[in-house]
Amino acid sequence: MSERILAGTLSEKNIDQEVTLKGWVQRRRDLGGLIFIDLRDKSGLVQVVFNPDRSPEALQIAETVRSEYVIEIHGQVVARDPDTVNPALETGKIEVLATQAYILNKAKTPPFLIQEETDVAEDLRLKYRYIDLRRQSLQETFKMRHQIIQAVRDFLNDDGFIEMETPILTKSTPEGARDYLVPSRVHNGEFYALPQSPQLFKQLIMMSGFEKYYQIARCFRDEDLRADRQPEFTQIDIETSFMTSDAIMDMTEKMMTSVMKKVKGVDLPRPFPKMSYDEAMERFGSDKPDTRFGMELIQVSDILADSSFKVFSDALNAGGKVSLLNVKGQAANYSRKAIDKLTEFVKIYGAKGLAWLKADEGDLSGPIAKFLTDEEKKGLIRRGEVEDGDLLLFGADAKLSIVHDSLGALRLKLGNELGLIDDNKFHFLWVTDWPLLEYDEDLERYFAAHHPFTKPVEEDLAKLDTNPEDVRANAYDLVLNGYELGGGSLRNYKKEQQDKMFKVLGFSKEAAEEQFGFLLEALEYGAPPHGGIAMGLDRIVMILAGRSNLRDTILFPKTASASDLLTDAPGTVSKAQLDELSIQIREEK
Amino acid sequence: MSERILAGTLSEKNIDQEVTLKGWVQRRRDLGGLIFIDLRDKSGLVQVVFNPDRSPEALQIAETVRSEYVIEIHGQVVARDPDTVNPALETGKIEVLATQAYILNKAKTPPFLIQEETDVAEDLRLKYRYIDLRRQSLQETFKMRHQIIQAVRDFLNDDGFIEMETPILTKSTPEGARDYLVPSRVHNGEFYALPQSPQLFKQLIMMSGFEKYYQIARCFRDEDLRADRQPEFTQIDIETSFMTSDAIMDMTEKMMTSVMKKVKGVDLPRPFPKMSYDEAMERFGSDKPDTRFGMELIQVSDILADSSFKVFSDALNAGGKVSLLNVKGQAANYSRKAIDKLTEFVKIYGAKGLAWLKADEGDLSGPIAKFLTDEEKKGLIRRGEVEDGDLLLFGADAKLSIVHDSLGALRLKLGNELGLIDDNKFHFLWVTDWPLLEYDEDLERYFAAHHPFTKPVEEDLAKLDTNPEDVRANAYDLVLNGYELGGGSLRNYKKEQQDKMFKVLGFSKEAAEEQFGFLLEALEYGAPPHGGIAMGLDRIVMILAGRSNLRDTILFPKTASASDLLTDAPGTVSKAQLDELSIQIREEK
Repeated sequence: MSERILAGTLSEKNIDQEVTLKGWVQRRRDLGGLIFIDLRDKSGLVQVVFNPDRSPEALQIAETVRSEYVIEIHGQVVARDPDTVNPALETGKIEVLATQAYILNKAKTPPFLIQEETDVAEDLRLKYRYIDLRRQSLQETFKMRHQIIQAVRDFLNDDGFIEMETPILTKSTPEGARDYLVPSRVHNGEFYALPQSPQLFKQLIMMSGFEKYYQIARCFRDEDLRADRQPEFTQIDIETSFMTSDAIMDMTEKMMTSVMKKVKGVDLPRPFPKMSYDEAMERFGSDKPDTRFGMELIQVSDILADSSFKVFSDALNAGGKVSLLNVKGQAANYSRKAIDKLTEFVKIYGAKGLAWLKADEGDLSGPIAKFLTDEEKKGLIRRGEVEDGDLLLFGADAKLSIVHDSLGALRLKLGNELGLIDDNKFHFLWVTDWPLLEYDEDLERYFAAHHPFTKPVEEDLAKLDTNPEDVRANAYDLVLNGYELGGGSLRNYKKEQQDKMFKVLGFSKEAAEEQFGFLLEALEYGAPPHGGIAMGLDRIVMILAGRSNLRDTILFPKTASASDLLTDAPGTVSKAQLDELSIQIREEK
Repeated sequence: MSERILAGTLSEKNIDQEVTLKGWVQRRRDLGGLIFIDLRDKSGLVQVVFNPDRSPEALQIAETVRSEYVIEIHGQVVARDPDTVNPALETGKIEVLATQAYILNKAKTPPFLIQEETDVAEDLRLKYRYIDLRRQSLQETFKMRHQIIQAVRDFLNDDGFIEMETPILTKSTPEGARDYLVPSRVHNGEFYALPQSPQLFKQLIMMSGFEKYYQIARCFRDEDLRADRQPEFTQIDIETSFMTSDAIMDMTEKMMTSVMKKVKGVDLPRPFPKMSYDEAMERFGSDKPDTRFGMELIQVSDILADSSFKVFSDALNAGGKVSLLNVKGQAANYSRKAIDKLTEFVKIYGAKGLAWLKADEGDLSGPIAKFLTDEEKKGLIRRGEVEDGDLLLFGADAKLSIVHDSLGALRLKLGNELGLIDDNKFHFLWVTDWPLLEYDEDLERYFAAHHPFTKPVEEDLAKLDTNPEDVRANAYDLVLNGYELGGGSLRNYKKEQQDKMFKVLGFSKEAAEEQFGFLLEALEYGAPPHGGIAMGLDRIVMILAGRSNLRDTILFPKTASASDLLTDAPGTVSKAQLDELSIQIREEK
């Protein structure tokens, strides 16, 4: 008996060869006394023919076979008749003439068809995930996920990094997102927490003298879920000693270009562009700009400084700004009604309205045109490079963030609607010079914009006491096509720096000690300058595989209510299990 | 300024070169107006000399430097005087003459010296793990761990496997060890469990059509800990479809020989020897025999069938056995007192005593000699290949397991004591033909010897109803130097087989459905024949790195009470955190 061969590898070079195939019945057709089966395995499909002249026994078995049966076929590779060649199939020039057939396992009728175009509810597909995963596009997504991970590893291994494993059962650190907790049986009343990231451990690894660490690390956040979040996710986690932020960015770029080359066959230019956080907000209204298309936000506050239009003047007088989007050549395509819809859209982002103008015969018209002087109109036309037929949309607010957020979102929406975005482009971008701190007006305290271990920019240090909101962080985010792939920073490696940071964040000495005492102590025993980066692997896979949903990149994902519909987790446990842990369920609530 | 160079890479070829070094002060010595610093980084050590003639400024800084300070040095590589060459140091023929020095970070006096030979209590070293990890041998262990993992990956990637990630937040399955539980916030009163292994998920991956899966998988067991157990551990987890157990063993051997070649430079012969479970127990008294030395158990029941020595006859009449160890040439070295100690030792394993004989002048002497006929003595001498000066130690019991366990343990103890074991040997061995089931006399039910998903040997199937204890499993364990590296099996892929297995294990239809319904259902939708293996990575690292303790192979290990002494996990959490999870701590107990 010949050794098993993979169905998808067969071609004309195998003609006349005796082969053994094992796999699934994708489809069976009975035609003129013959039976045709598309046999599927991990490599692809091949057509198997059962012919009563060749093997009535095999034909008899084929008659009992249905979709998703697991079968073993012995047969001979033959050329197809020219008129039955299937150009849509890799193996379409040949077929296998069965001489023997065996049923390895039967299958009930699957709850849904295994095909790419499907309107089957996702809940049903998640319950039968092992059937959904047989779809070719999901098979390919997970092969690509594997390729991406290996490309990352190959690069980092060659660059002198070592892969290390940090604990999953760790200590709860309430700063940050919500922890998943694990009750301890040995220490009753105490809990482990699942790590939100290996942040502190990777810093300790630097203090252990390893200098170049990475991990494809599982992380956990007990947050309310959206389409782009999962309770457990995977990040490419990197930390280095003695490297500058430029060197870390440079290394990361090399890693990502190597991944793009190996996985997508794309040669990307380096260095990647860098843009400050402020510039990204001003030009794109986003801290993760999609630079695959233009239509940038254009700041026109100075032009409208003396505007008689109340919306503009109120915004400017209150210290706000006015920016515009020039939607090139779309004036005729956007009716008043269509613009009303855009107005509703920007209101989601806190905008009070959406002023607009249309350009025609070298002039600007529209409801607010009458409030503008000729000088102002000329200024707008010049600054906005406005031509006849353009549509101008204005954002104006006392709060800069509302102008940025609303116009940034509107830009993306229009970019998509107008087909301005080329899906085949991969635009990487560094966003740098992040603010170190964010002020929470409700809680009346500062929070770390990245995390409390980020090192401030040296020259801004003096401002920590006077105007903390102006202090920049030694932090950098990597953006691809408008998605944040990840971010990193240099860390505080001197104890005084870290003490100071906790103080600014409102920690008492005791609270800092209680939660992070081990890190503060470690900083005193020879901590090297260090920094790193962490990147969301699931998101990288999503973008490179062209999927629209993070769940498609995770083998056994959870739903928006953090359930696994396949195994039915979470579930109830026995009282004996809880007793051992000395916990009980609170009945009220 | 020159780019940083790694200290341990410097040699005579760098003489006259200007270099920049960054690292830790391993040691400072002041000698005749000069200062010598051993600078350590991840690559090794180099000696830096501070000379007032060359740079009084650098010397001044060196004067303030202490052990574990992090420093940056600019200097020139120079040859050492022939009489100061240090052959113990890789870089011992050169030194670096400092021209500039910078203190990057200070260090308090470490709580213990960073040196290999240490009697510092392990608890203190675990609390300051980041200092202990700076020891060279631990640095090398984790580099080797990295190499082992990458060698495994390289092999499996080349062999067509794809690496996949299974969930950490899964469903509790009480069969097996104790689960770590994670309370759900969204589904109050319900719990996730951390996986004891990805067993069910990897089977589902086969049902998803991927055919060749692997993962370097974190696993969790909430068991009482011993020196060779940790609450979280890592296994090399593999599953395949359509492969026979021989093919899986063959693939595993190729993987392990590739690891041994790449990591240890050792060429191992293949195929690895195979031994049935029964043979392993009879010959070595162990299901994981250390075959690096002989001194096998010799079965002598038939020779002593009519023995007048009551211990032997009682054991044999009750269906038991008598075996002996021939401790070659050691008769003179074991006094009655020394043998008494061995007797105490075997009692740990349930033996009632330890009969013994010594060989001299072609005869056997000792307290039990008078009970033996000449015929019996001759039989023992012939069977045991006994020569003058040999010491014979007997195990006799109605229970075979007591004879095996006690003599097996005694064999290992004596093998170590007598220096019979060559530490440079690597003896791999497959143990096969395991029993499928074990009977628990207290609970009066059968348990799965491996796990409930193991496929019985086809020809034993009929015995499942009549004498289940005689049914063999399609299972195989890989043993190295007396350690179980891991094991695997073919799995039940037909629903009827799995139903039957649950029935034999005493599961009601409802209980099987409740716990494993999703797997039983998946078996009905086209499950391919499949099987795999899982191997303990931590243990492999321990053996290959020559460590005696699993904790040395895990970066941030936990103590015997499952505590992390560095971060002080587990710890208390806030009432608010528990309230969100709707759980509370039971005060009583």
